[in-house]
Amino acid sequence: MGPHPTVAAIRLAVRRVLHDVLIATPAPNPLVLAACSGGADSMALAAALAFEAPKLGVRAGAVTVDHGLQPGSTGRALEVAARLRGLGLDPVDAVGVTVGRQGGPEAAARDARYGALDATADARGAAAVLLGHTRDDQAETVLLGLARGSGTRSLSGMAAVSGAGGRYRRPFLLLDRDTVRKGCLAQGIDVWEDPHNHDPAYTRSRVRHEALPVLEKSLGKGVIEALARTAQLSRDDADALDQWAATAERDVADGDGTLDADRLYVLPAAVRRRILRRAVIAAGSPPGFLFARHIEEVDRLVTDWRGQKGLNLPGGVEARRRNGRLFFSPS
Amino acid sequence: MGPHPTVAAIRLAVRRVLHDVLIATPAPNPLVLAACSGGADSMALAAALAFEAPKLGVRAGAVTVDHGLQPGSTGRALEVAARLRGLGLDPVDAVGVTVGRQGGPEAAARDARYGALDATADARGAAAVLLGHTRDDQAETVLLGLARGSGTRSLSGMAAVSGAGGRYRRPFLLLDRDTVRKGCLAQGIDVWEDPHNHDPAYTRSRVRHEALPVLEKSLGKGVIEALARTAQLSRDDADALDQWAATAERDVADGDGTLDADRLYVLPAAVRRRILRRAVIAAGSPPGFLFARHIEEVDRLVTDWRGQKGLNLPGGVEARRRNGRLFFSPS
Repeated sequence: MGPHPTVAAIRLAVRRVLHDVLIATPAPNPLVLAACSGGADSMALAAALAFEAPKLGVRAGAVTVDHGLQPGSTGRALEVAARLRGLGLDPVDAVGVTVGRQGGPEAAARDARYGALDATADARGAAAVLLGHTRDDQAETVLLGLARGSGTRSLSGMAAVSGAGGRYRRPFLLLDRDTVRKGCLAQGIDVWEDPHNHDPAYTRSRVRHEALPVLEKSLGKGVIEALARTAQLSRDDADALDQWAATAERDVADGDGTLDADRLYVLPAAVRRRILRRAVIAAGSPPGFLFARHIEEVDRLVTDWRGQKGLNLPGGVEARRRNGRLFFSPS
Repeated sequence: MGPHPTVAAIRLAVRRVLHDVLIATPAPNPLVLAACSGGADSMALAAALAFEAPKLGVRAGAVTVDHGLQPGSTGRALEVAARLRGLGLDPVDAVGVTVGRQGGPEAAARDARYGALDATADARGAAAVLLGHTRDDQAETVLLGLARGSGTRSLSGMAAVSGAGGRYRRPFLLLDRDTVRKGCLAQGIDVWEDPHNHDPAYTRSRVRHEALPVLEKSLGKGVIEALARTAQLSRDDADALDQWAATAERDVADGDGTLDADRLYVLPAAVRRRILRRAVIAAGSPPGFLFARHIEEVDRLVTDWRGQKGLNLPGGVEARRRNGRLFFSPS
């Protein structure tokens, strides 16, 4: 008798990613780490990695991050690490981090977490780090990006492969959370649910427990799948437009960082605004503070030129037009 | 004392659109029609048109459509027409339509409505038809597009200018519904609320009364604006990518409708899939039945060629690869 269908689906997803890692990695017996919070999704990931890796000549390890945000979190992390060792994973690291405040609690925790994952992967010489994000997490990420209203790139969610050298891989991005959780249950794996996942103080928690259920009720059951597909299509679109902008930029840019207004004018708005955004960022504007309305204003120097004076942009950057050229400089 | 600020905002929006119509129209004293259901948004639109048009040498008329879906709808339409004449609009037409069933009740009603608006505009020789859609309607349309999960074009909502020759214009697309409704109240205009707008049998009604309020609660008050901005950015992106696909198509297509697989291979996925979609539609597939997964399968003939056999696509179209070329034909 084979494994439960959900367990088979989980393992197949991990096996496929391990094949990709082997193709991308020249060294023999590469080490692959599962990033694991102790929750059902990442415990299922760790168990599947422990099951599949030996058959492919891959060494399987894990890392769990102690965010230090709750009393007893260190003991919890050590307990998760012990469970991971119990699955046969080796090495297993429990890494403590200090969560700062920049960008809000969720962004700060994420930054600290990825810092620790990067450091552990470097220290252990890992070829890849697997992350347990499911299709439902992807749908949530798309909704959060939608709320920013900053366009196609922000709708593109999480990539199946990301990070320096494609280090991070997400085998479960096309699997629904329900399948992964059932697979975890079917194997009798002990899990620990982070209470933050249910804390309405966190935007993602509200999206998960309030917004998505109502969207499913209003728009139908397929909405999670539609959001995940939107992520993939938006990513492809954003990549293509970035490529076009990079090529077109060479035609409109002088070596000194100024841009030719007439050559910008004939480009499609989507391409022109991407070039303008890159130029403003290159001049020192922090991307996180640069909104669509700023770029629209810069764009009017091209499309609606009436002798406007220079524009003050975030990060103390000034954009102005003179003699048919756009200049970007500290104001 | 000037008008209430909401009335001023409404009139300014209409005035700007009338300027655009005058620029686009060679004939003197063009006729502009307000499409009016009798609800607050379109009554505010009709009143603003009646106020602004004479000052610009524009003739102002209106049209109301009787969908015949409720008992007494014809009397209602005649009453709305009388109110529109009371605002000084002339000509005013009340046009009855028969709503079919194709594509569901909302799509069928919309098709019938635009058919009647087109016919009235033609018969009256109107230069433009104004529609009362607000930013809130736009946000709803983006959410409905998101639920389809079919990418950037379906997220681009309603255009400010659309229809043959740019006939339809939406002056309120950047105004929130609340402003428009307050402007209607401030002028003491009698309105009639279509009960379908509150009928949970209609998807749009559920989006308006269930989904958007919860999204605002979860994601913050800016979500309507973010959705409307997403529409604009997505429209620009989709337009640019369509342009790229049309140009690239000339490089990969033979005169006989076949496509060169190697030349397709080097294009970005977003551009390649648009070309493939156009080719499948040109061969006879109905666009409404052609989904992302179909195009992904065709794409594998290019990116993952292992000698697959021909693919059967909606509308009896077959896609196959032979001698490095893709063929699309009735199967």
